[in-house]
Amino acid sequence: MKNIIYSSFAILFISFTSCTTSVNADIDSKTTTPLPSWNDVASKKAILNYVNDITNKESKNFIPVVDRIATFDNDGNLWSEQPAYFQLFFAIDRVKALASEHPEWKDQQPFKAVLEDDMPALLKQGEHGLIELVMATHGGITTDEFEEDVKQWLATAKHPRFDKPYNALVYQPMLELLDYLRANDFKCFIVSGGGIEFMRPWSEEVYGIPQDQVVGSSIVTEFDYNNGNPVIRRLPKMNFIDDKGGKPVGINRYIGRKPVFASGNSDGDLQMLQWTDSNSYKSFQLYLHHTDAEREWAYDRDSHIGRLDKGLDEAQEKGWTIIDMKNDWKVIYPHDLE
Amino acid sequence: MKNIIYSSFAILFISFTSCTTSVNADIDSKTTTPLPSWNDVASKKAILNYVNDITNKESKNFIPVVDRIATFDNDGNLWSEQPAYFQLFFAIDRVKALASEHPEWKDQQPFKAVLEDDMPALLKQGEHGLIELVMATHGGITTDEFEEDVKQWLATAKHPRFDKPYNALVYQPMLELLDYLRANDFKCFIVSGGGIEFMRPWSEEVYGIPQDQVVGSSIVTEFDYNNGNPVIRRLPKMNFIDDKGGKPVGINRYIGRKPVFASGNSDGDLQMLQWTDSNSYKSFQLYLHHTDAEREWAYDRDSHIGRLDKGLDEAQEKGWTIIDMKNDWKVIYPHDLE
Repeated sequence: MKNIIYSSFAILFISFTSCTTSVNADIDSKTTTPLPSWNDVASKKAILNYVNDITNKESKNFIPVVDRIATFDNDGNLWSEQPAYFQLFFAIDRVKALASEHPEWKDQQPFKAVLEDDMPALLKQGEHGLIELVMATHGGITTDEFEEDVKQWLATAKHPRFDKPYNALVYQPMLELLDYLRANDFKCFIVSGGGIEFMRPWSEEVYGIPQDQVVGSSIVTEFDYNNGNPVIRRLPKMNFIDDKGGKPVGINRYIGRKPVFASGNSDGDLQMLQWTDSNSYKSFQLYLHHTDAEREWAYDRDSHIGRLDKGLDEAQEKGWTIIDMKNDWKVIYPHDLE
Repeated sequence: MKNIIYSSFAILFISFTSCTTSVNADIDSKTTTPLPSWNDVASKKAILNYVNDITNKESKNFIPVVDRIATFDNDGNLWSEQPAYFQLFFAIDRVKALASEHPEWKDQQPFKAVLEDDMPALLKQGEHGLIELVMATHGGITTDEFEEDVKQWLATAKHPRFDKPYNALVYQPMLELLDYLRANDFKCFIVSGGGIEFMRPWSEEVYGIPQDQVVGSSIVTEFDYNNGNPVIRRLPKMNFIDDKGGKPVGINRYIGRKPVFASGNSDGDLQMLQWTDSNSYKSFQLYLHHTDAEREWAYDRDSHIGRLDKGLDEAQEKGWTIIDMKNDWKVIYPHDLE
């Protein structure tokens, strides 16, 4: 049963990302050893070899700077996604925060289930109930109000297992990979099934990825002149779902160029990796395999969230690079360095 | 009558743009006098004063680099748009190029009118006929094929009045403005009613604006794995019209941040300028007024294309900066410098 709610939510919120230039980080990465939180393993060597090759002007695989586009999924790839997509926790917390303005929610599903912390009842609402939850918590307000809500939530909410703010649960080795690529003149983008306006308020500070380099799912918005105080209103209607085949479409729509480097962790990223793999330049496909039940989570083919099944087969078949989280990474989160 | 076809087309193809970093140009602009093709007039002074103010760390109006977002309309603002949007010439030329594959077009409107160079008959087809024209010439192929078609057309087609390639008819003073803003760490975007994939094949070379900093109108696309040779197919269906209220929506969707500098030339840009004007940072609104019948064209309130009527009133009322093309610009096109 739980699978239904997570899968349905997955349709609404899934992820892919691409990098930009944070000058200090670039200088650091150029003068220090790259990827310090990675063990000296095959995945790290493959990344270093690829970047050394395509940035070498003497190499037949040299790629001009303008074509160095890298795209990164977000959920389960740059930050954790268990025990549920963090955006689902946001939606649940939003319902609780808005409940006083909506006395009718006490007797109305799916809100009643959320307010009573009754997950089985919430699951019974199915996809329709979830969409209602999202629209009620993500729509009907202005883009400025929504941004403020996301910032407030991040400043106060804590992850149930780690008791840290959700955006503290980003992967230190992936932050180093973003820095390393930028130091080698890659332009890095997020390409995520997650909500584009849910990621932008913190993508610059946390990842060094500017707001205009975040691609994600979106709802319909409209401009309102509002008597000289213009606002953009978020309507309760889906606009674009940036998952599976939607990822290459989102890449084409937002970025234009085909990436040469793509990084994901689930079957929802497979089409992005296939699209990148079809680049006439030498390209790099990277899958993060969650194998670390102790420090993070271990899941793949049977997971209700971030399922990696077809993608794992195709990666093995095509020789794409797979990160074994447990063996390849010295630390998981930035606070592990402390 | 002619107004109908141009206005209908205008709905499909209108424009807004924002800048990026072209290193050599930046250095040049920093060491040489900015805006050399501008006379020493009020519009030039207003631009220089604004940029000097908001880049001065001691000023109360200082704007951090990350918030220096500038957006530019394209048609009639960065390149000419007369006697019709250049993308309409492209569509007409495409019909002629594709005619041999479509013998039925000889007897079928709106194609018959195009093939017979019969503008009155084409006009009689109204908006429906125009949409059919666009979908037949812009849809039904892959994104790679469309890009190749645009490049081929630009390499061969000539503007009827100037007998030059269409992308030679960009405004030299605006190229200098883009360089000047970039030299002052602005990130510049195109935000145009024109087709996003019609602009991207040449925006980098001509304007120094990367493909991912071009926002425009788009049609629906879909990913096709195509037996291991993935393509993105352009479907004959509109996705997004980036004009009027669509411009702030497009800015929010693609860029995220609200611009501090916006530049346009028609009523279709008014909402973009209003949106920028609502920025809490000191902002700059720029209208290009086409006043030069001799070197370019003179048109405003009654024009069938690029109409500037409400925008002109609001600009005067709010004290926005207006470029008087005839008086303010020493030259119009880059070839005027030769």
